[in-house]
Amino acid sequence: MLTQAVIKDLTAIVGSKNIITNQAGLAAYGYDATLMSQRPVGIVFPRSTEDASALVKYANRAGLVMVPRGAGTNLSGGSLPVENSLVICVSRMTRILEIDPKNFTATVEVGLVNFDLQEELEKHGYYYPPDPASYKASTLGGNIAECSGGPRCFKYGVTRDYILGLEVVLPSGKVIEVGGKNFKSEFRYDLTRLLVGSEGTLGLVTKAILRILPKPFAKRTMLAIYNKVEDASLTVADIVAAGIIPTTLEMMDNLLINTADEHVKLGLPRDAGALLIIEVDGYEVDLDNQVRLIEELCNKADVRSFKVATSQAEADQLWLARRTVIGSVGRRRPSYSLQDVTIPRSTFPQMVDAILACSRRYDLPIGILAHAGDGNFHPLVLFDERDADEVVRVHKAEVDLIRDALALGGTMSGEHGIGVLKKEYLDLEFTDVAIEAFRKVKRSFDPTAMLNRGKIVDIAAEG
Amino acid sequence: MLTQAVIKDLTAIVGSKNIITNQAGLAAYGYDATLMSQRPVGIVFPRSTEDASALVKYANRAGLVMVPRGAGTNLSGGSLPVENSLVICVSRMTRILEIDPKNFTATVEVGLVNFDLQEELEKHGYYYPPDPASYKASTLGGNIAECSGGPRCFKYGVTRDYILGLEVVLPSGKVIEVGGKNFKSEFRYDLTRLLVGSEGTLGLVTKAILRILPKPFAKRTMLAIYNKVEDASLTVADIVAAGIIPTTLEMMDNLLINTADEHVKLGLPRDAGALLIIEVDGYEVDLDNQVRLIEELCNKADVRSFKVATSQAEADQLWLARRTVIGSVGRRRPSYSLQDVTIPRSTFPQMVDAILACSRRYDLPIGILAHAGDGNFHPLVLFDERDADEVVRVHKAEVDLIRDALALGGTMSGEHGIGVLKKEYLDLEFTDVAIEAFRKVKRSFDPTAMLNRGKIVDIAAEG
Repeated sequence: MLTQAVIKDLTAIVGSKNIITNQAGLAAYGYDATLMSQRPVGIVFPRSTEDASALVKYANRAGLVMVPRGAGTNLSGGSLPVENSLVICVSRMTRILEIDPKNFTATVEVGLVNFDLQEELEKHGYYYPPDPASYKASTLGGNIAECSGGPRCFKYGVTRDYILGLEVVLPSGKVIEVGGKNFKSEFRYDLTRLLVGSEGTLGLVTKAILRILPKPFAKRTMLAIYNKVEDASLTVADIVAAGIIPTTLEMMDNLLINTADEHVKLGLPRDAGALLIIEVDGYEVDLDNQVRLIEELCNKADVRSFKVATSQAEADQLWLARRTVIGSVGRRRPSYSLQDVTIPRSTFPQMVDAILACSRRYDLPIGILAHAGDGNFHPLVLFDERDADEVVRVHKAEVDLIRDALALGGTMSGEHGIGVLKKEYLDLEFTDVAIEAFRKVKRSFDPTAMLNRGKIVDIAAEG
Repeated sequence: MLTQAVIKDLTAIVGSKNIITNQAGLAAYGYDATLMSQRPVGIVFPRSTEDASALVKYANRAGLVMVPRGAGTNLSGGSLPVENSLVICVSRMTRILEIDPKNFTATVEVGLVNFDLQEELEKHGYYYPPDPASYKASTLGGNIAECSGGPRCFKYGVTRDYILGLEVVLPSGKVIEVGGKNFKSEFRYDLTRLLVGSEGTLGLVTKAILRILPKPFAKRTMLAIYNKVEDASLTVADIVAAGIIPTTLEMMDNLLINTADEHVKLGLPRDAGALLIIEVDGYEVDLDNQVRLIEELCNKADVRSFKVATSQAEADQLWLARRTVIGSVGRRRPSYSLQDVTIPRSTFPQMVDAILACSRRYDLPIGILAHAGDGNFHPLVLFDERDADEVVRVHKAEVDLIRDALALGGTMSGEHGIGVLKKEYLDLEFTDVAIEAFRKVKRSFDPTAMLNRGKIVDIAAEG
């Protein structure tokens, strides 16, 4: 608990409207989307970089561990409070400082929600490619901390590819600017990209210069439905082998088709083995050719039905199933464990097989959701957390899925981060020497681990 | 000088064919493309990562500072030996370990020359986008150390966008692998991108997993010739404002048109103010439209002549002037200072004006060469190094150009690095806090600065 004196000092920095210390508030900010929980001792909302810097300096003096937070949609516990921690929540720093179409940049405060930026850019004929499933809620600060991906990143790349510069409050409270408006902005050393994906453990990002792109002239959204998941998986391999790079190439299996359709009632065929949502964008004249080629490849893999959305409304309908699917699995089992394993995309069919085998091995329903073009799988392991035996099996399944992905040359986490959830598995993927290099980086920025302590790696100075 | 005992030990690691200690050899490896010089005490050529690791461990024990080197085409002194240093030259590690078209990757030893990779990829219908002007000579290791750009990077991005994973000998001699075959390969912390552009100061890279792309279906190369440099600069601004992203958009001014044409005799009009080489690629069906639109914009800016190459041979001719221009300026003055200032591209015309003003201010011929789409200028300041007064003015002109670029929101170096040449200017661009953050990164990897000492930043433990 914070003393009255500390509350008074913090209030002096951010004002009384921007601090929460009551029990209901502490509970509300005590979890993220991993559904683990730990109450913080307080939540403060900086209104500016100056506020954030003052807060970090004060917390250092007061010996308060700080946990940066955006919208709390994190899936690996990265924004989860730790014991006796002060949450610094950027969600009230939401200004768009500049949209500069000539340089393809937007400069924003990082509490801005991804979707709100997209809406504003739309007016200028631009967009910001990274589109995590959480984009209607998640902040750009959170996207930066996690290096978020999303369906479009098969063609367009991940958050790191769209961050040109950052303003950052270092763990000391000092402020630095790194990068700039040009993608060649001096970067020796490349702190911009070191900070992207560092889960708020190296600095508290307050502003970002984002790379934006002109909206594509045209796009086509396709839905392909298969009797068997293996057929869908063959199409994925064939599209990749043909050298086609769709904007998105998303897969959902039978289990998820059913839960999604129960949830949003789109009339999807409940007996289908899998579906693919495929989108291509570019110049109008190209798209018909691409659609034709993709349809041929779908037919080659015994697609049951193939259709192209004829309007934006119809395309949005196709996306609705995908965008809401994670929430829909609650209809089957009360709990789920969402994985993030990612493999070289040529091994896509092998990873599908590995997930099916894992489901059988532990007698657990596993829904297969995948950014298929990226080889990024989000297997949803469904269970009941009140069933102790099942929880043990879920844990074993998680480890197996990670080991399977690593055996295929993949990684345990494509876009959700390490946080606290996957920290224990780090040594499955990295050697001691590599993990020690991570620790050295952490120590060089934050030797006493005051900022987001215990996330990604632990360092000796902690605790 | 190395003692016989040290020479014997080093020879035991790499074999007698892979060590140079004679004076002629030391002289040959005593410079890079900056034309500064400093003899090393020896040069060793690792044949493998194991060799490199053993060399680094040995050099640490023997107290020898190490300078990593590729082909020595560096333009900022990054591969220049320092006093009493051992050059570790990767140029004999040239194997292509794998080309994996399905995953769009190539795995190589980093002594491989960029062009040799391109030739091999060509056979598979693929290419590696980063194409620095030095690509026929420079190694991928050097490209990685400098985060090289090149003409194509306006559309395709720089080296960091094409490095998926690295094998690295740390300054301790320990080896780590970072990244992997998937662009979402786990990267917390993102050591892959921290190492790219770190100029060999954090680790000695031995292998890299590169992202490769299918060759574009078609391309068009255009040559636009202008009476005035300001007109060319207007076209650049207009193309950017129209949201067109050509593959390349290169500019040369009157001075460089003349030296290039004297050199390669292409029949370029000697009285032209500037020329633009513009290339677009993509699907055949799009290109005519793009060419038409670009021609309209050129006409709007009073282009004198506009032509589209009708064959690859003709396109290659157009490129010949650009590819050889830097060497050609020796016809005018014995020395040149090649700058690398980069500005937000919307300010392109202002930077052209600033360069013209700088040329007048110091009475120095300055050739304007630019990756115009990127806003990356390579002004060539021509002088005679035997003229002490001129050398003083060149130095002043360099500082002015950097200040001009920074005033426009730019950077001192877009793709050539800091090395030793621009270290003294670092504080013009960065605050003390930012430079101290760079030092912390360096110290966390290499606390006693054994690897490429004195490049980018100095740290206290040195010397």
